[in-house]
Amino acid sequence: MTLNRDARIGRSALLLLLSEEKEYQEDLISNTNWSFCEGKVGSMEAQKVVAAIETAAKNNHIIDKDLYREGHALYHAIIEALHGVTRGEVQLGSVLRTVGLTFAVLRGSPYENKAEGEWIAVALYGTIGAPVKGAEHETIGLGINHI
Amino acid sequence: MTLNRDARIGRSALLLLLSEEKEYQEDLISNTNWSFCEGKVGSMEAQKVVAAIETAAKNNHIIDKDLYREGHALYHAIIEALHGVTRGEVQLGSVLRTVGLTFAVLRGSPYENKAEGEWIAVALYGTIGAPVKGAEHETIGLGINHI
Amino acid sequence: MTLNRDARIGRSALLLLLSEEKEYQEDLISNTNWSFCEGKVGSMEAQKVVAAIETAAKNNHIIDKDLYREGHALYHAIIEALHGVTRGEVQLGSVLRTVGLTFAVLRGSPYENKAEGEWIAVALYGTIGAPVKGAEHETIGLGINHI
Amino acid sequence: MTLNRDARIGRSALLLLLSEEKEYQEDLISNTNWSFCEGKVGSMEAQKVVAAIETAAKNNHIIDKDLYREGHALYHAIIEALHGVTRGEVQLGSVLRTVGLTFAVLRGSPYENKAEGEWIAVALYGTIGAPVKGAEHETIGLGINHI
Amino acid sequence: MTLNRDARIGRSALLLLLSEEKEYQEDLISNTNWSFCEGKVGSMEAQKVVAAIETAAKNNHIIDKDLYREGHALYHAIIEALHGVTRGEVQLGSVLRTVGLTFAVLRGSPYENKAEGEWIAVALYGTIGAPVKGAEHETIGLGINHI
Amino acid sequence: MTLNRDARIGRSALLLLLSEEKEYQEDLISNTNWSFCEGKVGSMEAQKVVAAIETAAKNNHIIDKDLYREGHALYHAIIEALHGVTRGEVQLGSVLRTVGLTFAVLRGSPYENKAEGEWIAVALYGTIGAPVKGAEHETIGLGINHI
Repeated sequence: MTLNRDARIGRSALLLLLSEEKEYQEDLISNTNWSFCEGKVGSMEAQKVVAAIETAAKNNHIIDKDLYREGHALYHAIIEALHGVTRGEVQLGSVLRTVGLTFAVLRGSPYENKAEGEWIAVALYGTIGAPVKGAEHETIGLGINHI
Repeated sequence: MTLNRDARIGRSALLLLLSEEKEYQEDLISNTNWSFCEGKVGSMEAQKVVAAIETAAKNNHIIDKDLYREGHALYHAIIEALHGVTRGEVQLGSVLRTVGLTFAVLRGSPYENKAEGEWIAVALYGTIGAPVKGAEHETIGLGINHI
Repeated sequence: MTLNRDARIGRSALLLLLSEEKEYQEDLISNTNWSFCEGKVGSMEAQKVVAAIETAAKNNHIIDKDLYREGHALYHAIIEALHGVTRGEVQLGSVLRTVGLTFAVLRGSPYENKAEGEWIAVALYGTIGAPVKGAEHETIGLGINHI
Repeated sequence: MTLNRDARIGRSALLLLLSEEKEYQEDLISNTNWSFCEGKVGSMEAQKVVAAIETAAKNNHIIDKDLYREGHALYHAIIEALHGVTRGEVQLGSVLRTVGLTFAVLRGSPYENKAEGEWIAVALYGTIGAPVKGAEHETIGLGINHI
Repeated sequence: MTLNRDARIGRSALLLLLSEEKEYQEDLISNTNWSFCEGKVGSMEAQKVVAAIETAAKNNHIIDKDLYREGHALYHAIIEALHGVTRGEVQLGSVLRTVGLTFAVLRGSPYENKAEGEWIAVALYGTIGAPVKGAEHETIGLGINHI
Repeated sequence: MTLNRDARIGRSALLLLLSEEKEYQEDLISNTNWSFCEGKVGSMEAQKVVAAIETAAKNNHIIDKDLYREGHALYHAIIEALHGVTRGEVQLGSVLRTVGLTFAVLRGSPYENKAEGEWIAVALYGTIGAPVKGAEHETIGLGINHI
C-alpha cells in the first residue's frame, strides 16, 4: 500500500496553487486519471469558504452531489485543510480575521495498490490577517481523505 | 504594508520542499537576501520534530541562538506549522501516529515597506499515519511569524 | 466513593434517548429519586442548543433557576456533551453544519457514598451534517458534573 | 440518501455497550448484514486505547488489515469517539486521568440508498477519572465514518 | 446571586501569587472564612503540575481527599487554569516546553447569596518556555469552579 | 537573556487590573520606560473584545498602527490572553456566554539583555458567564509576545 511517488495528490494540489506555470501543472495532472478543480474565495466567514469549495467540487463533478458519502469525505478534507489555515481555532471573523484563498480539489489514486481506491485532496493557499488591506501574511492548508 | 508578490516567503519555503528542481529554487532564494535551511525528521514524538527544526535553524544561523526573542518567534512558527500537519491535536505518538517530514525554515522580508522588517516561515511537508509502512498520507504545514 | 452500578446516570440518560420502550426507561428512573427531562432541538447555532437544554432543565425544575451554582454545573455538562457531538470544534453553522438532537438531562446520586451528593448528566443523540436533507450521520454526547 | 431508521449503526453500537440483554442486541445486529466486534481497554495512554480498538477490528475482520483505506476510516472514527470521551483535549495520562472503557466497532449500511455503501461506527462507554479507585464518572463517545 | 466585590476569590488567589507583601494578602484572606494553600512546581510534564496542586490542596485540607465530588471540582479548575498557561494545547514537554509555576488554591464563598455556597479558585503564575535557562516568558492561568 | 525580576511586564499588566491603588501601579510603570493603556469591554462577541483592545493600543500609541508587524504581535498576544479567559474554545456568544472585562496592554523590555528588545503583554480580568446578571464568575488571561 505504498504511496506512489508519481501520484502524490497533496503535492500536486499544492503545486496547482503555487506554481506560476499553470499549463505545466494542469498537463501533469491531465496525464493521470485524476479530476480536479480550482477556485478562489475571500471571506471573514469560515462557512463561506466551506461552501465555495463544496460548490466548486460538485459543479465540476469532482464529487457526486447526490452521494452523501462523497460529500462527507470532502467535508472532512476541507475542515482539515482549514486547520492548517487557521492554526488553532477554525474561526475567522469571530476572532476578527479574514482570509483570501485560492483552493484546489483533486481526486485521484495515490497508492500503488489499486485496491486503495480513490482519495481526495483539498489544498488552500492565500493570506490571513486583519480586515485591513495589507495586514496579512501567507497561509496554507491541506486535507486528505479516502473517498 | 502590502505583501510583495515576489517575496512570498511562505510560498518559497513550500516550493523548496515540493519542487524537484532544487537548484532553481535555491537560486531563486539566493537572489534575495533571505537565509534558509532545510532538513528531515521522522518521529512519533512531536517534541523531536520541534527540536530538529530548532537545531537546524540555529546551526545554520537562520536565528541567533543566543536571543530568546528569535527562538520565541521560531517556536511559534513551528507550532503553527504543526497545526497544519496534525489538523486537530498537536499530538503524534500519544494518538498512535507518526510523521516523516521534510522542513524548510526561511527568513526574509516579505513586505514592500522596509519597516515591516524580517519574518520567518516554517514549512513542513511529508507523510502522517499509523506506525506501519505505507499506512500514511501526505500532510503539510506552514507557520509565519515576525522576527 | 464507588460508582453504583444500579445508579449510572450517564447510561440512564442515554438509554432514555436510545430506547424505544420509553415507559420502561421512565419507570426505571422514577423508581430512583432522580429527576429528569427530555426534549428536542435542531439548529445550526450551538447557542440555541445550549439555550434549549438550559430552558428545559429550568422549566422542569431539574435545576434551580435562581442558583448560579446549579446553572454553572449544567452549563459545563452541556458544553462537554457538545464536544462529543462536534468532535473537534464546538461549532455548527460557522463550519457549515447543522444538528437535529434529542436531549435528556438527569439529576441523581450515582455514588454509594451519600456524601458524594447529586450529579447531573446531559445526554445528546441525533444527527449532524450538512444543511441538506439526508446529508448527515448519527452523533452523541454526554457531559457529567457534580451539582 | 436518508438515514434508515432501522439501520442506525451508531445507536446499535451504543446499545451493544449499554444494554444488559446482550443476546437481544446481538440478534438484532446479526439480522442485518453488519459485522461488529466488542472489547475492553483500560489505560492512562490514549494510544493504547487506539491500538486496542484497531487490533480488535482487524482480528475480527471488521476491517481489512491490508488496506490503508480501511485503517484510515477506522482511525478517524476512533479519534472522533475519543473526543466524546475526553471532551476537550484527547489526552489521558498527560493530564493525570485514566479511562476504563468498553468498545464496539460496527460496520454496516445505514442509508436507504445502496450507493451510500458501508460506514463504520466506533462506540465507547465507561469511566474516566483520576488514577484512584472510584474517583471517576461515566463517559461516552461515538465516531462515524464512511469506509 | 451577585458576585461580592469584597469576596473575589480569583482576584485574591492571583494577588497571593503576584503581591510582594505576602502578609497583607494572607491577612486579607484570613479575615474571611476562606481556606487556601500555596506552592511551587516546575516540570515539563503537565501531569506533574496537576499532581502537585492536587496533593497540596488535599494535604492542606482545602478539599476533602475522600470525596470525589471535591476532587472533581478541583481537577476541572486546574485544567482550566492550565488553559491560560498553555494557550492552545494543554501540553508541555510533548511540544518541547517547560513551566516554572507558583500556584494558589483558594476555597471560599464569593457570592452575596449564601445559597451559592463554596467555590474553588486555582491560580497559576510563573514562566513558560524552552528547556533552556532564560528562554521563557511569564504566563498565568485561573480556573474557578463550584464545589 | 534572564527575565529581569523588576521588569516583569505580565505581572505589572495584571497588577494594573487587580490593584486598587491605581496611582501606585501607574507610578511603578511610569518609572520604567514602558508604555501602557487600559480599558474596558463587555460583549458576547469575541471579535469586539479583540477590536476594543486593538483600537485602544493604537489610539494610545502602544503600537504603531501603520506597521503590520506590530499589529501581528499584538493580535497573537490578544488571542493568547483570550485562551485564558475562555479556557477551551475561544468562543463567547456562540456557546451562549458573555464577558465583562478590563484590559491592560503594556509594552516594555523585560529582559536584562538589551538585545532582547521590546515585548508586549495583554492582560484581561473580569467576569464570564451566562447572559444573565450575576450568573458569572471571574476570569483572567495573559498573552505575551515579542514586538
